[in-house]
Amino acid sequence: MSKIIFRQLFDAESSTYTYLLGSNKEAILIDPVFEQADRDLKLVNELGLQLKYAINTHCHADHVTSTGLIKSRLPHVKSMIAKVSGAKADIHLLEGDKIHVGDLEFKCIATPGHTNGCMCFYLEKEGVLFTGDAILIRGCGRTDFQQGDSGRLYDGVWQKIFTLPEETIIYPAHDYKGNTSSTVGEEKKLNPRFTKSKQEFIDFMKNLGLAYPKKIDVSLPANLECGIDYKPQ
Amino acid sequence: MSKIIFRQLFDAESSTYTYLLGSNKEAILIDPVFEQADRDLKLVNELGLQLKYAINTHCHADHVTSTGLIKSRLPHVKSMIAKVSGAKADIHLLEGDKIHVGDLEFKCIATPGHTNGCMCFYLEKEGVLFTGDAILIRGCGRTDFQQGDSGRLYDGVWQKIFTLPEETIIYPAHDYKGNTSSTVGEEKKLNPRFTKSKQEFIDFMKNLGLAYPKKIDVSLPANLECGIDYKPQ
Ligand SMILES: [Fe+2]
Ligand SMILES: [Fe+2]
Repeated sequence: MSKIIFRQLFDAESSTYTYLLGSNKEAILIDPVFEQADRDLKLVNELGLQLKYAINTHCHADHVTSTGLIKSRLPHVKSMIAKVSGAKADIHLLEGDKIHVGDLEFKCIATPGHTNGCMCFYLEKEGVLFTGDAILIRGCGRTDFQQGDSGRLYDGVWQKIFTLPEETIIYPAHDYKGNTSSTVGEEKKLNPRFTKSKQEFIDFMKNLGLAYPKKIDVSLPANLECGIDYKPQ
Repeated sequence: MSKIIFRQLFDAESSTYTYLLGSNKEAILIDPVFEQADRDLKLVNELGLQLKYAINTHCHADHVTSTGLIKSRLPHVKSMIAKVSGAKADIHLLEGDKIHVGDLEFKCIATPGHTNGCMCFYLEKEGVLFTGDAILIRGCGRTDFQQGDSGRLYDGVWQKIFTLPEETIIYPAHDYKGNTSSTVGEEKKLNPRFTKSKQEFIDFMKNLGLAYPKKIDVSLPANLECGIDYKPQ
């Protein structure tokens, strides 16, 4: 087993976390952000890695993905996203699919509800879960757009995330307060949303009163096409 | 050996990283930020930890420390900083001192140059180094205030940091581009400042042309007193 390279990267404008993982010279980027492509590809290069996959946990509404931009620069890179998302990609993922990067094996776990195409990526051996917006640290993604469904989200989190070992480290797609990670055990006990009953959760999500997502009208159409034709203003 | 708890926390306003480490129910906060005291103490509490130490890598010029505020709430907590810094604290640290938190042992490594009282904290067994501003990811702290000395900084980094095992993970006090960690091997090879010759480094640091530090006139006097009498405007 070769050394695993792991880097958490932050985009301050959208508060998005991108994750770079490397093993045996191969690399994957999870949720890379358009404006950070230079930073991310430079790092991949500096660490002596070859980028194999650029992957999204879901079709983001708050930033444009860099998967299309990355592929235009590095045509050998394959993009991936859940099939149900309806977004373009080289590889469409289904529940239970395995992604191999060097010695790393990611297991795809469908957790719809924030969007209908949300997936978590699970490194079982390493005890690490990339949750996208299905579960955030003490929070979760909104459910009022993109075929969101609070009941499905609640069930998916309880059935597929909270049943993993408690010490599993959670790396979310966003954090707005400066937290960088959590664990399954901690969220199961302390997440103020998922510790509610299902009906309370559904009511709570219905009454969040959030503003219309600022970048959704730009991000969604762009992300459905991997951001390939996106031209920043 | 009990499970180690590790959390990297970010203050977006000052781009400061605070680190929470816990072992055997005891905890330490490294470089905690005044405005984030509620967040940090809540997390310590949620994780079932008892805060033992609140410690600064140096007397910061860009934010006010929360060590004084934390002690006013939790009087059993001991604050620590390098003796040479001239700042108040319950415990003044010297080169080679050891700090024990549960099963964790931090070794104090003096790396003056950004300020005259800069210290790194080294978890030798875990292979982790908290560098403060002595070395940042692909950068370093400025040397034009607080008894800064580029030549001393250069020598200290080469003699005391770059001689550690290459896989040692570096956690800095700041990052401005969304990076969260690096390694000794990586910085030794890729840090654009420390890969210069000593004279080039000194000249480079002299000609950075940085603006006068925005918060220095508030932060320095406050931090010399642990932020105890600090009243935010
Ligand atoms: Fe999202
Ligand atoms: Fe500093």
